[in-house]
Amino acid sequence: MARNAHPEATRRRILEAAQRLFAERGYANTTIQDILDELGDLSKGAIYHHFSNKEAILEALTEDDWNAHWKMANEMLDRTDITGLEKLRELIRASTTDDAHLATNRESAQFLEDPTTLAHNLEWWQTTIAEWIERIIRQGVEDGSITTEYPHEAAVLFSLLLNYWVGDAPSADQVEPRLRCVATMLAALGLPVLDEEMIRLTIHGVGEINRPRFEQHG
Amino acid sequence: MARNAHPEATRRRILEAAQRLFAERGYANTTIQDILDELGDLSKGAIYHHFSNKEAILEALTEDDWNAHWKMANEMLDRTDITGLEKLRELIRASTTDDAHLATNRESAQFLEDPTTLAHNLEWWQTTIAEWIERIIRQGVEDGSITTEYPHEAAVLFSLLLNYWVGDAPSADQVEPRLRCVATMLAALGLPVLDEEMIRLTIHGVGEINRPRFEQHG
Repeated sequence: MARNAHPEATRRRILEAAQRLFAERGYANTTIQDILDELGDLSKGAIYHHFSNKEAILEALTEDDWNAHWKMANEMLDRTDITGLEKLRELIRASTTDDAHLATNRESAQFLEDPTTLAHNLEWWQTTIAEWIERIIRQGVEDGSITTEYPHEAAVLFSLLLNYWVGDAPSADQVEPRLRCVATMLAALGLPVLDEEMIRLTIHGVGEINRPRFEQHG
Repeated sequence: MARNAHPEATRRRILEAAQRLFAERGYANTTIQDILDELGDLSKGAIYHHFSNKEAILEALTEDDWNAHWKMANEMLDRTDITGLEKLRELIRASTTDDAHLATNRESAQFLEDPTTLAHNLEWWQTTIAEWIERIIRQGVEDGSITTEYPHEAAVLFSLLLNYWVGDAPSADQVEPRLRCVATMLAALGLPVLDEEMIRLTIHGVGEINRPRFEQHG
């Protein structure tokens, strides 16, 4: 069965085609047939061999994206050439400038309207993500770049406020004032991580992720 | 039909008996039969004439509580004898010391584990509640007791952080550090509302509302 000699390569091709189409026309406007047409040489059966439906494709994209980010984050944890504060800024740089990451988040962000997905994400931002940030903050406290008395709380707030309150802002014009508030508040806690560059990058990243919603709402 | 001559009085008696039992043994451990036994002279039919089930009783208690609070809040808006900042503190005082309010919230807080209820509350805290707080903050900016450049954002953060992040803290020992962070952060935004008295009162209120959950989790 020559066609299935490289199942991992086929899976990868399906994901890449789907990501291209999702980015171009949005998840809702893309069908499995569109993905087949984009690939040209694959049967419907071959797609369904890898993914049971369109949602499973988006889930795989989200998981691959998260694994890549998680790998980058863990390598960052081991670096000794930059401070803890700079590591957090590197994380923001990576999250707000990587086009594939922004495209994947643009599609998955739409599911935050579903209460179960929102509750799951709120939990994830305040535990898994915040735990990683707390480790970096503790490195920053050690190296003197961060001075907070509340490394745990600052980590949860950093993650919750940026991912939920800023990231899920109701309209584009609310992103910058929210970010400036978070910058001031985190600095007051001893975590002066959001400088002008970070604010600018985050406005860009949040705008890219929420483009369909922001355009729709005005 | 003498029994139904005062339907509003009967409704009120049912709610008061239910509230007493919910406070004593918890919502989950109270049955409609317990409420009947507590009242002594009412038929099952008479209860079901007013409330289709136990949930409807809790909903009515929550709504009555909210109406009373909303009335108090709107009267506060019209007061001219205290500053905007003091009005926010009066609101915290009322919310954290009124035993009936705390008991009602203790029962309804348990439903925040349900994603749909959580999503509904998140929306409500950031719109209806925050809009009222924003009006008070703008009064405070006018009278000089509050200096924030971000009245809208400060209002949403005040409501979201206190109601959700502090109010829904995972364990009792996380309430005070979270509150101290919120106090520092809001002060940095020009809203120095959480002084030591407010912190003490809020620790009490959050502890009362979450008593079943906090005891269960250690």
